[in-house]
Amino acid sequence: MNAPLRIGIAGLGNVGASLVRLIARHGNELAVRCGRPIEITGVSARSRNKDRGIDLGHAAWFDDPAALARDPRNDVLVELIGGAEGAAHAAVAAAIAAGKRVVTGNKALLAAHGMELARQAEAANVSLNFEAAVAGGIPIVKTLREALAGNTVNRIYGILNGTCNYILTRMEAEHLGFDECLSAAQRLGYAEADPRFDIEGHDTAHKLALLTAIAFGTEIDAGAVYVEGISSVTSADIEAADELGYRIKLLGVASRTESGIEQRVHPTMVPKSSAVARIDGPTNAVAVEADFVGQLVLSGPGAGGDATASSVMSDIADIARGNRVGTFGRPASHLDPYRQAGIRKHEGGYYIRLAVYDRPGAFAAIASRMAERKISLESIVQRRRAARSDAPGHLIPVEPAPVILITYETTETAIREALRQIKADGQIVGEPQMIRIEPFA
Amino acid sequence: MNAPLRIGIAGLGNVGASLVRLIARHGNELAVRCGRPIEITGVSARSRNKDRGIDLGHAAWFDDPAALARDPRNDVLVELIGGAEGAAHAAVAAAIAAGKRVVTGNKALLAAHGMELARQAEAANVSLNFEAAVAGGIPIVKTLREALAGNTVNRIYGILNGTCNYILTRMEAEHLGFDECLSAAQRLGYAEADPRFDIEGHDTAHKLALLTAIAFGTEIDAGAVYVEGISSVTSADIEAADELGYRIKLLGVASRTESGIEQRVHPTMVPKSSAVARIDGPTNAVAVEADFVGQLVLSGPGAGGDATASSVMSDIADIARGNRVGTFGRPASHLDPYRQAGIRKHEGGYYIRLAVYDRPGAFAAIASRMAERKISLESIVQRRRAARSDAPGHLIPVEPAPVILITYETTETAIREALRQIKADGQIVGEPQMIRIEPFA
Repeated sequence: MNAPLRIGIAGLGNVGASLVRLIARHGNELAVRCGRPIEITGVSARSRNKDRGIDLGHAAWFDDPAALARDPRNDVLVELIGGAEGAAHAAVAAAIAAGKRVVTGNKALLAAHGMELARQAEAANVSLNFEAAVAGGIPIVKTLREALAGNTVNRIYGILNGTCNYILTRMEAEHLGFDECLSAAQRLGYAEADPRFDIEGHDTAHKLALLTAIAFGTEIDAGAVYVEGISSVTSADIEAADELGYRIKLLGVASRTESGIEQRVHPTMVPKSSAVARIDGPTNAVAVEADFVGQLVLSGPGAGGDATASSVMSDIADIARGNRVGTFGRPASHLDPYRQAGIRKHEGGYYIRLAVYDRPGAFAAIASRMAERKISLESIVQRRRAARSDAPGHLIPVEPAPVILITYETTETAIREALRQIKADGQIVGEPQMIRIEPFA
Repeated sequence: MNAPLRIGIAGLGNVGASLVRLIARHGNELAVRCGRPIEITGVSARSRNKDRGIDLGHAAWFDDPAALARDPRNDVLVELIGGAEGAAHAAVAAAIAAGKRVVTGNKALLAAHGMELARQAEAANVSLNFEAAVAGGIPIVKTLREALAGNTVNRIYGILNGTCNYILTRMEAEHLGFDECLSAAQRLGYAEADPRFDIEGHDTAHKLALLTAIAFGTEIDAGAVYVEGISSVTSADIEAADELGYRIKLLGVASRTESGIEQRVHPTMVPKSSAVARIDGPTNAVAVEADFVGQLVLSGPGAGGDATASSVMSDIADIARGNRVGTFGRPASHLDPYRQAGIRKHEGGYYIRLAVYDRPGAFAAIASRMAERKISLESIVQRRRAARSDAPGHLIPVEPAPVILITYETTETAIREALRQIKADGQIVGEPQMIRIEPFA
């Protein structure tokens, strides 16, 4: 038997504690599979005395994760602290500086500092593995970096945030409003007390930015991701989508276009028959479209201590086996600069919901604004609301009528301009709702 | 740049020709991703003069694949000949004997000789990679061998044969019979002229046997797989399944049971809401249930030259990068002997369709036979066929009435015994139809 691989674990939250349990339960098997034992030689966490229900054995305790990172008794730093700055960043940088290999599940850290850390790791000739940073237990990083090495990826998209997918699934299944479902998600532990990072799409954007770098061989640029969250999605939208044969999902989408790589996160109407439409609850899914393989879809748990620990262990096993791949499926030095295809160049179909004043000419004015921008309408659904008839022969509309338009393919610029003018014309109440449609398979 | 990895390709059918095109199209990218160029230094196929629409460049031609395998101008043999015996076996054995690394897409070869070849490869300290042997472009071998290294797998199942799934999907969508759909599949190139190997389930059994070895760490035993094909599935079964909330799929299922590892291939009724129910046409899907990751589902093209070449390239890229994993995620010497859980110990629900003589007491006799074996019925659907009334007050049944029974969980032994007795009682016409039900998520 070869010498053990000695790992230091920084961060003993859900994932860290699951990893300790995994190594305890499967230690003998891991030694057979990896050709050497995996040994936890050091740990670090905020509180030493908290009962985590795990046995830390002879692992040395470090209050400072950077000290753990530098400790010569371990070969690998497993960073599960989280956060883009502070302790996590310091520990990873210290580990690389000490010539340690690094495994991290920290998407925020990589979204912010991934390029710099990858360059440092490669200069130090150590690997930087991050399977757990994207889509929990789904091995999408390995699939892109290794299994699809012979492909050019044209598009990658997916449901990358279980909180949002849980909320949208529940809104649809139980005809509930957004706020109610968010509260339920918080009660069940699917959403944080401060849910903004998830529901506003930023978590998805971080993960998408990492996938984009691997899939398209471009530098990480999380700031270039166009982001819209799900809080504006209403029951009315979900019901209309259902009637039209769609479901609404928060997707991260990155695709190769003529003007560069488009990266966007927003609520999306997808055909009910598509692979991503059928992903319910907190489950994640990633679809990859590539020239040789065609379409590949991976689905599984997007979060949770055990599932994420499975991905962390995958990275550790690679290191134990002596296997190594460029940080992004190629070295960071071989990434192209990210060339952004702005959201305004986006082309596609749109779902529009307007609250239209029920008066003569209102709809004609709206239709004209669409026509001026050469936007063709595939379908129009107008539902007349209840009206009073106080004076005989005189119907007084009590509230604006909802009008739903589905457009044929047009550009983001055209639709935004048309909606701006429709609003300026004073024919609608409030803001128009606009949800992009994707004809995914 | 490091020295090129020199590969010899034996077999230039669909997959071999696609691989040549892949390497030509993505040569520069592959060199960046793998850290060294991939060079085709030799090829072998049956006919030298056939126009395959590919440029073989300076590759040396070999009429004998074993000679290609031994040629010192290549480092890796890529075996894409197919077949369990003959040229493929000889070439792979010759390559291993010459100290070459081997990549193969040949499930029949591995199902028959995988243990022996793996032991030889490990003794020669060379890798034996076979991503393309299971589920075409889906990276299930890599996922099991590497991504799930930290998991104990409890069950793995999937749609592993595109021909069968195409036929079943079309039978359901267009209300057609089996023969008609088989002919359509043949016209479209989804089925061979001699389709028996596919439709009788043997192709699925070979793939399942390989997945079982990796997932459960047991020696390959393809002969121990219980196999039923799809040719007995009728439109009546598919329609009844639909009404009951199921779809019928040919599944390969391997699971850990108290008495050993159960391996079976048969038409299966799966809930419409399950992940595998939604896989249509020639697409394949594999679901893995494991202790830490939970459920992971991978779907994608199960065949086709380009998709399969993507998997072959994944194996070549691993070799080019110097990455290596035990043949079955562990060395062959660390596999446990396969301990078979016979199909008769299988427990589950059953769908039974009987053609029952329409006479007093027939159904009571059937129900009694079920009760004797302690088989509880979840539902009973009896449809009365059209009857003549030649003599007033005297209905003469023109043909036996179809009766459909859904049982609660019982054992394979109990259900088989009950059906044997029901047949012996003379209350039914022909053979009973029996399809296993799986409550998959």
